[in-house]
Amino acid sequence: MNNFGEEIKISLNKIKTENPMVHHITNFVTMQDCANITVAVGASPVMAYYKNEVGEITFAAKSLVLNTGTPDKGRIKAVINAGVAANNKNIPVVLDPVGVGATDFRQKSIEKILREVKPAVIKGNVSEIKFLAGLDIIKKGVDAGDKFESDLKEIFKNLAKKLQAVIIVTGEQDYITDGIRSCTISRGTKMFRSISGAGCMTSSVVGSFLAVENDSFLAAVYGVYTMNVCGELAEKALAQNEGAGTFKVKLFDEIYSLYKIENLVEDGVLFE
Amino acid sequence: MNNFGEEIKISLNKIKTENPMVHHITNFVTMQDCANITVAVGASPVMAYYKNEVGEITFAAKSLVLNTGTPDKGRIKAVINAGVAANNKNIPVVLDPVGVGATDFRQKSIEKILREVKPAVIKGNVSEIKFLAGLDIIKKGVDAGDKFESDLKEIFKNLAKKLQAVIIVTGEQDYITDGIRSCTISRGTKMFRSISGAGCMTSSVVGSFLAVENDSFLAAVYGVYTMNVCGELAEKALAQNEGAGTFKVKLFDEIYSLYKIENLVEDGVLFE
Amino acid sequence: MNNFGEEIKISLNKIKTENPMVHHITNFVTMQDCANITVAVGASPVMAYYKNEVGEITFAAKSLVLNTGTPDKGRIKAVINAGVAANNKNIPVVLDPVGVGATDFRQKSIEKILREVKPAVIKGNVSEIKFLAGLDIIKKGVDAGDKFESDLKEIFKNLAKKLQAVIIVTGEQDYITDGIRSCTISRGTKMFRSISGAGCMTSSVVGSFLAVENDSFLAAVYGVYTMNVCGELAEKALAQNEGAGTFKVKLFDEIYSLYKIENLVEDGVLFE
Repeated sequence: MNNFGEEIKISLNKIKTENPMVHHITNFVTMQDCANITVAVGASPVMAYYKNEVGEITFAAKSLVLNTGTPDKGRIKAVINAGVAANNKNIPVVLDPVGVGATDFRQKSIEKILREVKPAVIKGNVSEIKFLAGLDIIKKGVDAGDKFESDLKEIFKNLAKKLQAVIIVTGEQDYITDGIRSCTISRGTKMFRSISGAGCMTSSVVGSFLAVENDSFLAAVYGVYTMNVCGELAEKALAQNEGAGTFKVKLFDEIYSLYKIENLVEDGVLFE
Repeated sequence: MNNFGEEIKISLNKIKTENPMVHHITNFVTMQDCANITVAVGASPVMAYYKNEVGEITFAAKSLVLNTGTPDKGRIKAVINAGVAANNKNIPVVLDPVGVGATDFRQKSIEKILREVKPAVIKGNVSEIKFLAGLDIIKKGVDAGDKFESDLKEIFKNLAKKLQAVIIVTGEQDYITDGIRSCTISRGTKMFRSISGAGCMTSSVVGSFLAVENDSFLAAVYGVYTMNVCGELAEKALAQNEGAGTFKVKLFDEIYSLYKIENLVEDGVLFE
Repeated sequence: MNNFGEEIKISLNKIKTENPMVHHITNFVTMQDCANITVAVGASPVMAYYKNEVGEITFAAKSLVLNTGTPDKGRIKAVINAGVAANNKNIPVVLDPVGVGATDFRQKSIEKILREVKPAVIKGNVSEIKFLAGLDIIKKGVDAGDKFESDLKEIFKNLAKKLQAVIIVTGEQDYITDGIRSCTISRGTKMFRSISGAGCMTSSVVGSFLAVENDSFLAAVYGVYTMNVCGELAEKALAQNEGAGTFKVKLFDEIYSLYKIENLVEDGVLFE
């Protein structure tokens, strides 16, 4: 791909100009951070979660972020109602299945969600995405049982194909695949581990790109890259005695200003 | 009005000294910011929302802020219970009908609220306030149908008279009216658009002034002015590479220290 | 006690190394701050609150923080379910009965909780802890009625004995007792009153120490001391025009870096 940095800047400027509404149904821990990162990148967050109004709200949005952290029965119902509404209107959906394997309730909830809603992008860490790939409703098609540990990337690609969704796997390296195209991003900073909400905010930024980009794979790559680069810049901006608190503040500063940066370099971004 | 800046400082000092309890029933996105801005200005926020206890909490408060963002059935019930309790004890109520026209549920909710609760102050942006003025339960009295677009200020004044409430309309300019007195405030900064929650925090600050001021119109003016001026000061305090994140932090710094400022000038404040 | 500062540093390093999961069921106002302070000190917060999954989550945790602010019926049920699960597995519980005397609902809720759950540590301000000591279900055993006002420390010690829990009473001075050992901490800063959430965050930090320390009394002392010292350092780090907003940011910075500090002194810490 040519001019990777230029392409991202065009997309960032589109977000700033079009100010697209990004509807979130998200957890209560990082809700405020997700709202602020969405505003900072240039989009307009709405966070309604009542099952009887989320459909109407979603209809007015350009993308939908479904984050299933701090779930309860009502919120899972709202996630499904909003997801179905989005699918009906071709509004792209990001699904962030937080802690999906942690409880029986979460497992049953994700199965319900995946039966009814078709996400454009699913984002999780290695164990969350592996859990999804291992679900009965997935495995039947993926048939990846025995080589599960031997070749993770193959598992992720198969999951992407099976679900016809872009899969984002976050970690020290981030891996993004739509089953055919793949991208590994080796950027970012360990400071992300000093704050709560980095993962949730990544989904919000991906959702913001998805609101202006037709290609979900590129939107996912741009979102993950943007978070990583802004994390690096935020870390670089820290004075000697500053740490977790200032890092998060500066992360918002950097996301807010990224569109002005002259040269966004492709270093550490490997397309396959 | 003489000594506008002096009057505000007296009121700010009253908040710091009396530390009045301001009960909020508010949305979950900006709840924490609203709590922090209320503490920073010198008041004491409580944010209970369970329908079976909000009445008791409100009885102990000096003012009540009802923000209907991220609504659900239970919270609207709590809003009404708390509002009725406040009215019964002459505790002043600020109503912030976030996204009031966005869904059928929100429209029905606001109609229920306005039938049962009498706010002292209602704050919204132009489209929210216009939506209120256009509601059937309002229009019958206001009868402002045909000149709606031709003279917005007249609409807002009529709405204030009809509801016997102070109306705050926020925007690039802010307009405040009780139907007889009016005030236009041309202050503030575009940086407010870089963060989530500026509008909700304005309601909290207005609620804090309302807890120590008998004149709801002046409380509304002082609250809106305070937010605007502190936004300007926060923007001025930004270093070159700082943006949305630092702006919000400095907003709390400035609200916290405003009572110490020597000369709060009336520039950009026009009483009619 | 020798080497107080060294002992705390060993404990802080244990948190950073073991990264224990600290399950919270907490209020929605300061949830995000509690998550961030927990990450900053080195532990791993989970904040699930759905009654049907909290038991499973708690089983995987090293400690449980139960904060009953912004309560409703469902959350109190979840608090009890999680507390009972923790007790069954000997996972230590911190209880923070926010505003416990404020409403009838809160009083009935705390009675239910104390009948079913045995906390290792209870943290409150003077009026909250006095309220607990005055509950019928407590008084019968404590029998402290008439000397209530005359000797607060005796009341707190008796409450600790009766509940077999460490009691933390916060205020200008903080008092910690397990009924036999006691500690008074005269540290900290008035800047804590400029932000929302200092009390809730203290419970999270105590919960983090409790996840790596067998001695609940010491975990409580370390947690309260850590918050106080970091508050002092955060205040010292403020520039002239900085206030409430920057103070909170720097509080996270200091908590994040405390384990690196050379000499944590015992000044202002009095063991009895």
